[in-house]
Amino acid sequence: MHVVSEPFAPSIRTAVPGPATHGIKEELDTVIDARTVQMVIDYDQSIGNYITDVDGNTYLDVYTQIASIPVGYNNPTLIKAATSPEIVSALVNRPAVGNFPSHQWLALLREGLMRAAPPGCTQVFPAQSGSEANDLAFKAAFMGYRRQQRAGSPWTEYEQATAMKNQAPGSPDLAILSFRNSFHGRSFGSLSTTRSKPIHKVDIPAFKWPQAAFPQLKYPLEAHIEENAQEEEICLQEVRSIISSWHCPVAGIIVEPIQSEGGDNHASPAFFQKLQAITKTHGITLIVDEVQTGFGATGKFWAHEHWALPFPVDIVTFSKKAQTAGYFFSDEKLRPDKAYRQFNTWMGDAARIIICNAVIDEILNKKLVEKTAQVGAVLYNSLATLAAKYPHQIQSLRGKNKGTYIAFDTPDSSTLLKKMRELGINIGSCGVQTVRLRPMLIFQESHIAPLLAAFETVFSQLE
Amino acid sequence: MHVVSEPFAPSIRTAVPGPATHGIKEELDTVIDARTVQMVIDYDQSIGNYITDVDGNTYLDVYTQIASIPVGYNNPTLIKAATSPEIVSALVNRPAVGNFPSHQWLALLREGLMRAAPPGCTQVFPAQSGSEANDLAFKAAFMGYRRQQRAGSPWTEYEQATAMKNQAPGSPDLAILSFRNSFHGRSFGSLSTTRSKPIHKVDIPAFKWPQAAFPQLKYPLEAHIEENAQEEEICLQEVRSIISSWHCPVAGIIVEPIQSEGGDNHASPAFFQKLQAITKTHGITLIVDEVQTGFGATGKFWAHEHWALPFPVDIVTFSKKAQTAGYFFSDEKLRPDKAYRQFNTWMGDAARIIICNAVIDEILNKKLVEKTAQVGAVLYNSLATLAAKYPHQIQSLRGKNKGTYIAFDTPDSSTLLKKMRELGINIGSCGVQTVRLRPMLIFQESHIAPLLAAFETVFSQLE
Repeated sequence: MHVVSEPFAPSIRTAVPGPATHGIKEELDTVIDARTVQMVIDYDQSIGNYITDVDGNTYLDVYTQIASIPVGYNNPTLIKAATSPEIVSALVNRPAVGNFPSHQWLALLREGLMRAAPPGCTQVFPAQSGSEANDLAFKAAFMGYRRQQRAGSPWTEYEQATAMKNQAPGSPDLAILSFRNSFHGRSFGSLSTTRSKPIHKVDIPAFKWPQAAFPQLKYPLEAHIEENAQEEEICLQEVRSIISSWHCPVAGIIVEPIQSEGGDNHASPAFFQKLQAITKTHGITLIVDEVQTGFGATGKFWAHEHWALPFPVDIVTFSKKAQTAGYFFSDEKLRPDKAYRQFNTWMGDAARIIICNAVIDEILNKKLVEKTAQVGAVLYNSLATLAAKYPHQIQSLRGKNKGTYIAFDTPDSSTLLKKMRELGINIGSCGVQTVRLRPMLIFQESHIAPLLAAFETVFSQLE
Repeated sequence: MHVVSEPFAPSIRTAVPGPATHGIKEELDTVIDARTVQMVIDYDQSIGNYITDVDGNTYLDVYTQIASIPVGYNNPTLIKAATSPEIVSALVNRPAVGNFPSHQWLALLREGLMRAAPPGCTQVFPAQSGSEANDLAFKAAFMGYRRQQRAGSPWTEYEQATAMKNQAPGSPDLAILSFRNSFHGRSFGSLSTTRSKPIHKVDIPAFKWPQAAFPQLKYPLEAHIEENAQEEEICLQEVRSIISSWHCPVAGIIVEPIQSEGGDNHASPAFFQKLQAITKTHGITLIVDEVQTGFGATGKFWAHEHWALPFPVDIVTFSKKAQTAGYFFSDEKLRPDKAYRQFNTWMGDAARIIICNAVIDEILNKKLVEKTAQVGAVLYNSLATLAAKYPHQIQSLRGKNKGTYIAFDTPDSSTLLKKMRELGINIGSCGVQTVRLRPMLIFQESHIAPLLAAFETVFSQLE
């Protein structure tokens, strides 16, 4: 039994989390690590922007499964896709899609997923998670880099023999450069580029890859143009310096348009334009990680569309709101020189791509990117007004003209989040002391009032 | 429109691959690398053990999506699961399951997936592919190893700071040992343990992890007991030698029960018993990669159940026939000491676990493991008879008493496979010159006749 329309407001009936969550969490912990469970959810009772837990508490959800729910709980268009004959076949007849694709595969990609391809990107490679997408992008960058170096020469016997032993030159010493405070995932490749928190990295072997500082800008950006530009130039200089001095070639650079897990850190279009110029100069693949920023939340379909780059991005990775994962790419040379080099049994999941296509339908048909830009502007202004009243509680408000991708620093984010949840707002943090808003693309002006009311209640308690 | 029952025999109407496959492959190649496409399939026309391509050719499928289809195309039990309200919710309301699991999550695991847990394994961690499952297992092994070393001491500031720089001691130099000719996946961790072919590894940076020789046994095993035991002892001695001499500690050993991509190479129960004893002596985590061997095809639910080990395996990874992926583990100490160390946004896919639970239902209710053991014995004997007639074409027949997990060497496997497909048998190879049979768990004695007839036709042509 599903609910059919959103409630008018949150409603909280028990302590948060409630006794039912506690009971299920304890039972879960007998078979799976359940220490991270915050609430157990009754998704059948969740609808649109509202999520309901097993204790009957209903929250306005602006955290959205770590920024992953695009168009609302129990969205009818997604339900239609999830009950289509195509998805049933994809679920029960899972192909090794690189070898034996279905007769629907072409349409799922060409008339489906490719509608989301960023400007200039003509190719896609499907995956199942953001970490996998980034790892695959790194492999494409490494193969592309060695292809340039090899300049048409065939693989040598020695390269093949050493690769089997994990030794150079077959397994070469090549690096991906990332930025301090970045998050790109937790697999061994992506984790070697993740730099946000020790909890992700301690005890895990890593590739000796470099990091450059990411700009630490002052907000509001328009009030600190000159000093922010200087800060960005210092970071770009470090990138140049690492490229020329690192112990091995830098084959790829990966960057988030807005550093998300690392604290919602922004940089200017000029920064990214210059970064692209550096990669062009050195034959380095530029990988833009849009796992969290992609699919509309910044008021553009892709956050990097805010930059007005002169050339298409080499590789754009995606996951989360896409409800599937993978990478788009613009340069045919990033398709490996031989078949079966970028390959695995499943190469994504057609069932998840069918859901993604329904998400894209919703975004395009309902103009959700444009609407997110509009509602985001109202939300930002509302928070700026609140910041004037509670300047200690809302610091460095950021995300102006970036849709609903809005964040601010606050002295005690964990207490704030706890109190917000007790008032029926499910909200997330990032970085050290940052509150990040990650509403869905169907978040409307009518949702701003309950959100702001809760903030005001909590701030007045905390002052 | 689905077909409802298996045909009595393969039927081939066109050249293989046919014109419709060629046309779609060409169009696919405009948006995705389609060089590896062998046939485009009409899954709505595929049923049970038979697969039908877009040219209307119907094949008996004993390759099964690289050993991944467990209980037949368009299996009714799976269709029922794929149309259940639970899966619709899992598809449209995808949770960050570590934080906000659904109220059904406990039952999906405890009453569902855990039915497949290997003997002694009480815990599970879900994933989305075999590569990811192995990477996660390595991380669990590394964290477990450092936990032993640390003996209760907290993380130091220096460990945390160095981890953020990808440097020791925070990101320690620790190794996973694997075996020559093994295949464990293609992500950066798993690929560093994969040793089957250069096509997987050339140009990709790898961790400096060691490999030991895997036994190269003579078949039939019962005719070469003594020399095979000597060969195995040589390999075990190399394992011991690497552990004592490698430039860094070996924290984990990963091994396939039967090396599959590497050529269907077997080893004896005694070999694996001694290997486990070595890991126990040195505090090393033993990871058994059952991505291809698991879920029944060897005539046991898990291939390692053939070994009669004195202790439960530390970690068992799975994917493919499970139709989902992850790892089971037996030792609570392999659950990391802190929350959020083994974590990601999706942690598997509940929709795929619902399908997996339907697979487990089928296996248990229809006694498919036991039936596979029986039909495998008949199949093996039939092939042994054929080998006596064509000893040049069928060499080193192996897989006796291992269900349908049967393989043999042949002088020209690629020609054999091509001719078999032209006769309506979809079959795969592995290693250098090995034909591997990977029928489904619903492969019956009635399917042996068309398979053997095709082999005989081709062998008589090739002689």
